[in-house]
Amino acid sequence: MPVPKSNLYPDFNIVRLSHVEFMVTDLAASKAFYADTLGLQISYEDSETVFLRALEERNHHCIILRKGQKAEANVLGFKVYDEQDLDKAEIYFKEKGLPTEWIERPHQGRTLRTQDLHGIPLEFYARMNQLDPIHQQYKLYKGVRPLRIDHFNCFSTNVDESVAFYNDLGFRVTEYTEDEESKKLWAAWMHRKGGVHDMAFTNGRGPRLHHTAFWVPNPLAIIDLLDLMSTTGYLENIERGPGRHGISNAFFLYIRDPDGHRIEIYCSDYMTVDPDLEPIKWDLKDPQRQTLWGAPAPRSWFEEGTTFANTEISDSQLAAQPIVAP
Amino acid sequence: MPVPKSNLYPDFNIVRLSHVEFMVTDLAASKAFYADTLGLQISYEDSETVFLRALEERNHHCIILRKGQKAEANVLGFKVYDEQDLDKAEIYFKEKGLPTEWIERPHQGRTLRTQDLHGIPLEFYARMNQLDPIHQQYKLYKGVRPLRIDHFNCFSTNVDESVAFYNDLGFRVTEYTEDEESKKLWAAWMHRKGGVHDMAFTNGRGPRLHHTAFWVPNPLAIIDLLDLMSTTGYLENIERGPGRHGISNAFFLYIRDPDGHRIEIYCSDYMTVDPDLEPIKWDLKDPQRQTLWGAPAPRSWFEEGTTFANTEISDSQLAAQPIVAP
Amino acid sequence: MPVPKSNLYPDFNIVRLSHVEFMVTDLAASKAFYADTLGLQISYEDSETVFLRALEERNHHCIILRKGQKAEANVLGFKVYDEQDLDKAEIYFKEKGLPTEWIERPHQGRTLRTQDLHGIPLEFYARMNQLDPIHQQYKLYKGVRPLRIDHFNCFSTNVDESVAFYNDLGFRVTEYTEDEESKKLWAAWMHRKGGVHDMAFTNGRGPRLHHTAFWVPNPLAIIDLLDLMSTTGYLENIERGPGRHGISNAFFLYIRDPDGHRIEIYCSDYMTVDPDLEPIKWDLKDPQRQTLWGAPAPRSWFEEGTTFANTEISDSQLAAQPIVAP
Amino acid sequence: MPVPKSNLYPDFNIVRLSHVEFMVTDLAASKAFYADTLGLQISYEDSETVFLRALEERNHHCIILRKGQKAEANVLGFKVYDEQDLDKAEIYFKEKGLPTEWIERPHQGRTLRTQDLHGIPLEFYARMNQLDPIHQQYKLYKGVRPLRIDHFNCFSTNVDESVAFYNDLGFRVTEYTEDEESKKLWAAWMHRKGGVHDMAFTNGRGPRLHHTAFWVPNPLAIIDLLDLMSTTGYLENIERGPGRHGISNAFFLYIRDPDGHRIEIYCSDYMTVDPDLEPIKWDLKDPQRQTLWGAPAPRSWFEEGTTFANTEISDSQLAAQPIVAP
Repeated sequence: MPVPKSNLYPDFNIVRLSHVEFMVTDLAASKAFYADTLGLQISYEDSETVFLRALEERNHHCIILRKGQKAEANVLGFKVYDEQDLDKAEIYFKEKGLPTEWIERPHQGRTLRTQDLHGIPLEFYARMNQLDPIHQQYKLYKGVRPLRIDHFNCFSTNVDESVAFYNDLGFRVTEYTEDEESKKLWAAWMHRKGGVHDMAFTNGRGPRLHHTAFWVPNPLAIIDLLDLMSTTGYLENIERGPGRHGISNAFFLYIRDPDGHRIEIYCSDYMTVDPDLEPIKWDLKDPQRQTLWGAPAPRSWFEEGTTFANTEISDSQLAAQPIVAP
Repeated sequence: MPVPKSNLYPDFNIVRLSHVEFMVTDLAASKAFYADTLGLQISYEDSETVFLRALEERNHHCIILRKGQKAEANVLGFKVYDEQDLDKAEIYFKEKGLPTEWIERPHQGRTLRTQDLHGIPLEFYARMNQLDPIHQQYKLYKGVRPLRIDHFNCFSTNVDESVAFYNDLGFRVTEYTEDEESKKLWAAWMHRKGGVHDMAFTNGRGPRLHHTAFWVPNPLAIIDLLDLMSTTGYLENIERGPGRHGISNAFFLYIRDPDGHRIEIYCSDYMTVDPDLEPIKWDLKDPQRQTLWGAPAPRSWFEEGTTFANTEISDSQLAAQPIVAP
Repeated sequence: MPVPKSNLYPDFNIVRLSHVEFMVTDLAASKAFYADTLGLQISYEDSETVFLRALEERNHHCIILRKGQKAEANVLGFKVYDEQDLDKAEIYFKEKGLPTEWIERPHQGRTLRTQDLHGIPLEFYARMNQLDPIHQQYKLYKGVRPLRIDHFNCFSTNVDESVAFYNDLGFRVTEYTEDEESKKLWAAWMHRKGGVHDMAFTNGRGPRLHHTAFWVPNPLAIIDLLDLMSTTGYLENIERGPGRHGISNAFFLYIRDPDGHRIEIYCSDYMTVDPDLEPIKWDLKDPQRQTLWGAPAPRSWFEEGTTFANTEISDSQLAAQPIVAP
Repeated sequence: MPVPKSNLYPDFNIVRLSHVEFMVTDLAASKAFYADTLGLQISYEDSETVFLRALEERNHHCIILRKGQKAEANVLGFKVYDEQDLDKAEIYFKEKGLPTEWIERPHQGRTLRTQDLHGIPLEFYARMNQLDPIHQQYKLYKGVRPLRIDHFNCFSTNVDESVAFYNDLGFRVTEYTEDEESKKLWAAWMHRKGGVHDMAFTNGRGPRLHHTAFWVPNPLAIIDLLDLMSTTGYLENIERGPGRHGISNAFFLYIRDPDGHRIEIYCSDYMTVDPDLEPIKWDLKDPQRQTLWGAPAPRSWFEEGTTFANTEISDSQLAAQPIVAP
């Protein structure tokens, strides 16, 4: 079995994924997408950056848009349980021979910047500025009513290696696909916060960010977003869905922001807090793994992604092929 | 403009579409589909036939399944306002040189059998056996919770001719697509009962029945059906959707029954009772006309349909081509 | 049986209810309620009036707010099939000894003003200015997403008389409650356009307007409105609901506008176009008739209503009492 | 401030609430309620007991129905992280002078029985028999589609004491109400698993179980249950709702089982995994705290509850009064 036994006692406690920072080439266009269309709430903005949070969040931001020449992802951010966990994290990553650095990040406390084994830039912090709750300010609810950031999904050239690395950090595998011939992992979904995933890996040229997902209240919110996007000039930004995933059982939609960064809108997965939860294995040839209703993903979904700044990428060696819509 | 001015004063009053009779090759399999999976209610059954009604209907049946060798549609049934309308109908169709016949139909009153100009078999009646209301027997609600039959859509080799014929019967065009070069109609949606359509015509080899639609309470019912069908052996029966139509603005799903008869699950269109409602015209090249969200229909959706018993079919002469998913 | 046999052949054809005109004491406050909160669309406004339509309507208006000293309803408007029907209407009402008058109404064609047997002011027209369809301008969808005006419900001192009058106009009874002792009607629901009702009557001091209803896409729209109203200063405007009606089976909510005019938000009733639809009778003592889920209506719901301008009111003689929440 | 600072480092790790055992006087009636009506899945049954689980759970049971003379709750069950936590739990409770006992429990591993400071019977275990996932067996979805057990809410004669006790166990307060005069807690909501609560306490005669809640996919599931219960003989079992809570922001319904045990159906609260989440305080006089939409709870909701077997109860000393519906 290619999935490692869950590490129930990691060296330090990562609570959950926290935020992503995107370089965007047209800040106004991105703001129109994330704030006006999706309905994320602006917590701070200036001529170079827009910080946004989702409707039930009190953390200052879950997504940072930073004006730049090239559309990339700068970092994936994670929240740890307390300040001591940050110090333990520094020791942990140093021991793995990974670069670490303490950096200043606006609206965040002490922040440790590092990277994973394949070069994905990561940052960890314990406390971020807290804002007043707005989850009952219903006049703010619009767009797809995004409630919180839910997960990241990254292309990895070696999913087994990625899984081993994050497993050691305490991320527990909930579902995975395996290539029957090589017995290597094609993809895996791993969680910290009690849903199906905080981080997932999909075989492919990488490392690249495949998508960032937001949780919404129910499937009708996703239908509302499709109606809105398709009639306000965002028809081309709709990439795949809506549908019900096989893996995770969530109801989903994939869209692309003005720079092509992929966003997933997601709801209705299941709770995974039990330490003895057995990972669910899917056959790579099962057409229902991605969409329970059978519709294959378009080629773009398998191939396109966001590069990480200053991070070299390479091709995957795995020969397995997914089922692609023509 | 290829759409004729509505005939607001037809010779006799057709209230609405009423029912369809399908020849099915495996009665048990069809019963499992329509009753157990979709949730239609059986009002009568024997070794040869199953009569079903939808949850808010009091009419004895909206769909008849009849065991046969070949999967076909025997007739499309329509309800008229009163018995005098039946007599007027007989005169009307005779004057058009169309064959008419009074026939015995179980659970229905006096029934006039005839056909439209292209040979689609039609029957008209004024009163059908009434059953007790069950719309508040919520323990019966299952599957996709079908509330009533909503419309028929037929392939026609000459949509202009079909539209002229049904227009004269009082069906009013609500939406249509026109081929810009020839100025001929590609498709048209026509109503009697106050929704977007009772009858629609789509250019193609015909006459054939393209689909029969049922109205459901809301889009979540459609998502429920997809979840159910995809996990109870009906994955291959899901043909297209879910999605939001451009034309009609309805939320839809297309599925195929065990014989391949196409069924649409439909909700959320709009009211059309106003006599001065202007038909909405769509460009045949507009990718949003079929799915507001852009996804093109699969080739099968454009090509496959159900033949009518004892009815010759021929190819359409119209050269216009729709946008087809690869 | 107190319900008259439906008049299937009225003298002239009323298509549907069309609009209501309210006198409002604070035009800005009413506009904030109907446009900003409910989501109706303004088609015209000046310092004295605001005309609004709902999202799938093309008719210029379904509700007129007119600034005045006293909060009243000026008139209930109905659309007829064609101009000849207006002339027939004039003859019809004159023959009943009711006052008739041709009046100028902005944005409407020829309009006949009259009143019903108890003095409810009515106006009839055949054509109203048509606006462009906006039902697919999803960026306009907000509040409770009202799609169209659905019905009026009036207090009547003699429901049997009201029903006889409207029955003669072609309104067909779909449901009713009867007082078992006197065998008199307590309430009745009557339709023209194919839903459960266009006009309903409830025993009480009158004639007064009990409520005006708008149709919305699904129950989640109603939940959204409750969330919005309760957090934007309209908590006190929520009167009753949400719930499922016994009578009509619709999902509902009752709210009061800034002047106390009662509005119902309504969806999911059933189609009634069949001429042979049998009216459903409910026992006045059945606690499930108003709310299938049992919750009785508050006293205000039974007692409060909007008076009609220049219309005398009197008490009902009927002694029957409804079940009232304490 | 009456709410203690969260204990972020409890002696042992309680993962979540797990199950409740009810004594029921009519096992068949209870089974009809929980399995046939609510839609919970039977994992084991014999003549004395029925064990049920919810649709996304793999744990053998979340509710046990045991035939008995008197309708009571026997125990509230909690899952701990590992076997070592059970041993630590034994030490912990012994040190507090509370009785502990190792007991055999069917379908569960080693189980420690004890009680809280006021006598609520508790049991802890690390591993329970795991069943195959059924969350994608959509043909099993019926009733209110309960996905998992969500929380317990208990009456406590001294909420400050209860909160201090569970806080020391690592339950973190998310929301609370305080009596302004005495500064004592009226009620508090406390979590382990990342939602608004696993355990909540409400001032009142106790200790008694106020309710047990199940999480469902969305508000339409709750509307479906109300439609079903009100038309299948369970009208009297509907106690309060549906509505939107102020506290927790969840959409809710309260029902009573055949013995009067109160069940809450609950969805759409918010994620609370962040250690620095500030508790939200509500004023006891705020009518929106219980129902954001304002409707007060009925007297039964404040007064009735389920006693715990073999547990003495007493009255609360707190004089504060909630707002009660007449």
